[in-house]
Amino acid sequence: MKLASLKSGRDGRLVVVRGDLTRCVAADGIAVTMQDALDDWARVAPALAALAARLEAGTVASAQPFDPRACAAPLPRAHHWVDGSAYVNHVELVRKARGAELPASYWTDPLVYQGGSDDFLGPTDDAPFASEDHGIDLEAEVAVIVDDVPIGCAPEAAGERIRLLMLVNDWSLRGLIPGELAKGFGFYQSKPASAFSPVAVTPDELGAAWRDGKLHGPLVSQINGERCGAPDAGVDMTFSFPQLVAHCACTRRLGAGTIVGSGTVSNYDRSRGSSCLAEKRMLEQLADGQASTPFLRYGDRVRIEMFDAAGQSIFGAIDQRVVPAA
Amino acid sequence: MKLASLKSGRDGRLVVVRGDLTRCVAADGIAVTMQDALDDWARVAPALAALAARLEAGTVASAQPFDPRACAAPLPRAHHWVDGSAYVNHVELVRKARGAELPASYWTDPLVYQGGSDDFLGPTDDAPFASEDHGIDLEAEVAVIVDDVPIGCAPEAAGERIRLLMLVNDWSLRGLIPGELAKGFGFYQSKPASAFSPVAVTPDELGAAWRDGKLHGPLVSQINGERCGAPDAGVDMTFSFPQLVAHCACTRRLGAGTIVGSGTVSNYDRSRGSSCLAEKRMLEQLADGQASTPFLRYGDRVRIEMFDAAGQSIFGAIDQRVVPAA
Repeated sequence: MKLASLKSGRDGRLVVVRGDLTRCVAADGIAVTMQDALDDWARVAPALAALAARLEAGTVASAQPFDPRACAAPLPRAHHWVDGSAYVNHVELVRKARGAELPASYWTDPLVYQGGSDDFLGPTDDAPFASEDHGIDLEAEVAVIVDDVPIGCAPEAAGERIRLLMLVNDWSLRGLIPGELAKGFGFYQSKPASAFSPVAVTPDELGAAWRDGKLHGPLVSQINGERCGAPDAGVDMTFSFPQLVAHCACTRRLGAGTIVGSGTVSNYDRSRGSSCLAEKRMLEQLADGQASTPFLRYGDRVRIEMFDAAGQSIFGAIDQRVVPAA
Repeated sequence: MKLASLKSGRDGRLVVVRGDLTRCVAADGIAVTMQDALDDWARVAPALAALAARLEAGTVASAQPFDPRACAAPLPRAHHWVDGSAYVNHVELVRKARGAELPASYWTDPLVYQGGSDDFLGPTDDAPFASEDHGIDLEAEVAVIVDDVPIGCAPEAAGERIRLLMLVNDWSLRGLIPGELAKGFGFYQSKPASAFSPVAVTPDELGAAWRDGKLHGPLVSQINGERCGAPDAGVDMTFSFPQLVAHCACTRRLGAGTIVGSGTVSNYDRSRGSSCLAEKRMLEQLADGQASTPFLRYGDRVRIEMFDAAGQSIFGAIDQRVVPAA
């Protein structure tokens, strides 16, 4: 099934969405918010699935047109957002561009960072930034939402705790990252609010595209209507989602509704393009000695989407405009 | 006023607590949970204050004895937990112990890291750890809870968004920190669930102890009943809470209920002792060439508390036992 949160208060209002994203229905009487559903998934999910089946059959009188512009992020705010860097190719490129070796451990020990989860952006919300000079960049990613995960959970069991998948734009401030990382405590000021796709989707809904703990298929990102990249999210992903979740649960419990991200999707096949401008600029630097693509400016639009084999948008599109903070 | 969350479901049940921590009353009809209160503070706070006044006057028939063992963390889970390192003396010591210089910028640019906020421990909950060999350590700190803060908020205005103060034990795994920080993405696996004091307190309740954006008074930590330290939280704090909050809001909005921590409280006056074993061990290393105090073992108890001028516990005690994760 597909779920979304219509904008309403701080936590949105849960709706079930048709597979073709044309219609939706409020989950009234089942769960008020997405977090409510995740807090009690075993009891709530069957009722949501039954409603989704009736919506697909066209027998829900209260169904309404689904409008992504009315959507908040599936979780408008969450209690835990941790983002991996599972496409080690991407990390290797970042290092190569500055002449640094990739430590061998990066192939076996996932990199993750803890992100802010109190202020997620809806899929079509303007993305506000403090300054155009901070090196504003997209990072197109896939993320999962998990149920409660105990400390020390093994990858196989961790995989069974994955409840939903969605797309993310992990907005990044390239100009601030070196200074923040040099301080040694992580990305804090260089990772402003992230944006999520209109719809979150259960793994069973994805069919063969969800296998080996990875989502397979091109993740298409566009800037002002021109392709930035379309790397396959199932290719060159060094760590699967179950591995990432298990890594995150190594020393702590994860609460229901924890979001675990893949990191910037990146393929060795350079013809697939890039999921962020930093990678594009690194490739330019390696090829030409200098980067020519600028970072984003106010007014630029970024669109991120994934399509199934039949060309149907799976999650709906993240489609935002870069704007100055009020 | 003083507020607490009795254990109930995932988000607890909000109660108003008497200043002397002897009795409490459910905030029925005002706000169900602490997060609910913070989400609508301007409307809710006056009603809570009126209830608190009646509780102090002894005219609330439904008041019940206040039992810290029945408490979850004031926010049992939150949407944002960011911890500073405002006592630069502490950071300087860490560096000195490993022969590294302190960058001059550390005196003007706060260090902060984003922590996990989906699974906070109540004040008397057992603290579960994956391994005794990870170098289990306390970090006694003060934290504030803020209302919504806009991007780019100046320190003075940020100070006016502080709604509550509480104590924290920012449990740390010293054995994992060097490896995690070397990876460059922050502390993730080395910072398991944090614990908070039974009670969160409004700034006005603190009287003269809350001034210049700092909480003044000794923060007493004990291990198995013996003093670890009692440094004054208002002394040697390089960055005030308003400065820390403004730093955190530099590139992002902060949502209501965001928790901002001070970092390990630390004084230059060594007779005050330390708020963590790492600092104690560094002082031993600098004095004797090697550390002699071990990190914590299963069965050890850690107690953290602060008293007002009259000897009354302000926030109640964090008093936990170190246990193996189930």
